[in-house]
Amino acid sequence: MGNDPLARQIQFLLEIDRLKQITRRTLIADGSRRENDAEHSWHLALFAVVLAEHGPAELDLARVIKMVLVHDLVEIDAGDTYCYDPAACATQRDREVAAAERIFALLPADQGIELRALWEEFEAKETAESRFAAALDRLQPVLLNYHTQGRAWLEHGVTRAQVIERNRHIAAGAPRLWKYALALIDDAVEKGYLNV
Amino acid sequence: MGNDPLARQIQFLLEIDRLKQITRRTLIADGSRRENDAEHSWHLALFAVVLAEHGPAELDLARVIKMVLVHDLVEIDAGDTYCYDPAACATQRDREVAAAERIFALLPADQGIELRALWEEFEAKETAESRFAAALDRLQPVLLNYHTQGRAWLEHGVTRAQVIERNRHIAAGAPRLWKYALALIDDAVEKGYLNV
Repeated sequence: MGNDPLARQIQFLLEIDRLKQITRRTLIADGSRRENDAEHSWHLALFAVVLAEHGPAELDLARVIKMVLVHDLVEIDAGDTYCYDPAACATQRDREVAAAERIFALLPADQGIELRALWEEFEAKETAESRFAAALDRLQPVLLNYHTQGRAWLEHGVTRAQVIERNRHIAAGAPRLWKYALALIDDAVEKGYLNV
Repeated sequence: MGNDPLARQIQFLLEIDRLKQITRRTLIADGSRRENDAEHSWHLALFAVVLAEHGPAELDLARVIKMVLVHDLVEIDAGDTYCYDPAACATQRDREVAAAERIFALLPADQGIELRALWEEFEAKETAESRFAAALDRLQPVLLNYHTQGRAWLEHGVTRAQVIERNRHIAAGAPRLWKYALALIDDAVEKGYLNV
């Protein structure tokens, strides 16, 4: 069945099941366990649906949704890179490009090209859609960290300045959401969820 | 902040985090644990993106994707109803309507109405989009059950006739995918993953 398009599509859909096993540092909202990439991607897709009005005007929402659905697929091979770990960040791009080569090539060629382009667009952050998607990808863990009393932040010794530095690009994709995130971050410091 | 739209949107996005805790009977592809509804919904959204060509002509793919993203939200209150349990099925609709009343009402009114309408459309299965979404919602567990050697089927004493009865509506949304599923089901019987 190697070249039947449906067989290749099914093969891809089975392969990406592994995203359910890639664990992030962020806890889910009740604090009971760490979140995985598949859940995170679903959550982001609904962030996009629900918060679209706070994004740029004339946003192509369907493209944002597809982008967040695929944005972490490369982590199947490359793993989750913790955003406050500079050593891991240094090799992240190379590891993720190699993963993209393998994973998107499982699909029929035209679809592989389309989904890989969405991932590259997300990475480059040059379009309104990718900047909005990136803003949501940062807002969601800030929200979960806040609502789990900052456990992931405190555990990894993250400071307010690091959180601001890492998340300030929310402002480029959704200024209103950055204002909201900033208020949460300051309240987190106030409540002892995040160190100065 | 009770009536600020953004505050209500964030409240909804935090509430639906609970979907990550609703466990299905189906195992994830490597058989290591059961799948949850949030992962399942993400997976279905990518089934929609990748398999769209096998659905009806002139499909509104963006609506299908939104539909599968929200189709299980009612299970936050109503729980996952196992499709081969007749007693649970008898009360399912009432439990899910009550859940929809509560959960979608967390959003600003216009958004709550829009997302609830998508859920009702999915339930009614009267449009091409909802029939395709429903087909994917059946195909995905068949695929996972097959690739985990039928463990969920065997554990719950499910027979081929029940699987056929439960899944035959795949044919209404995507005939090509039903043909594929049928071949898998027959191969599952052949291999001892599913009882006659």
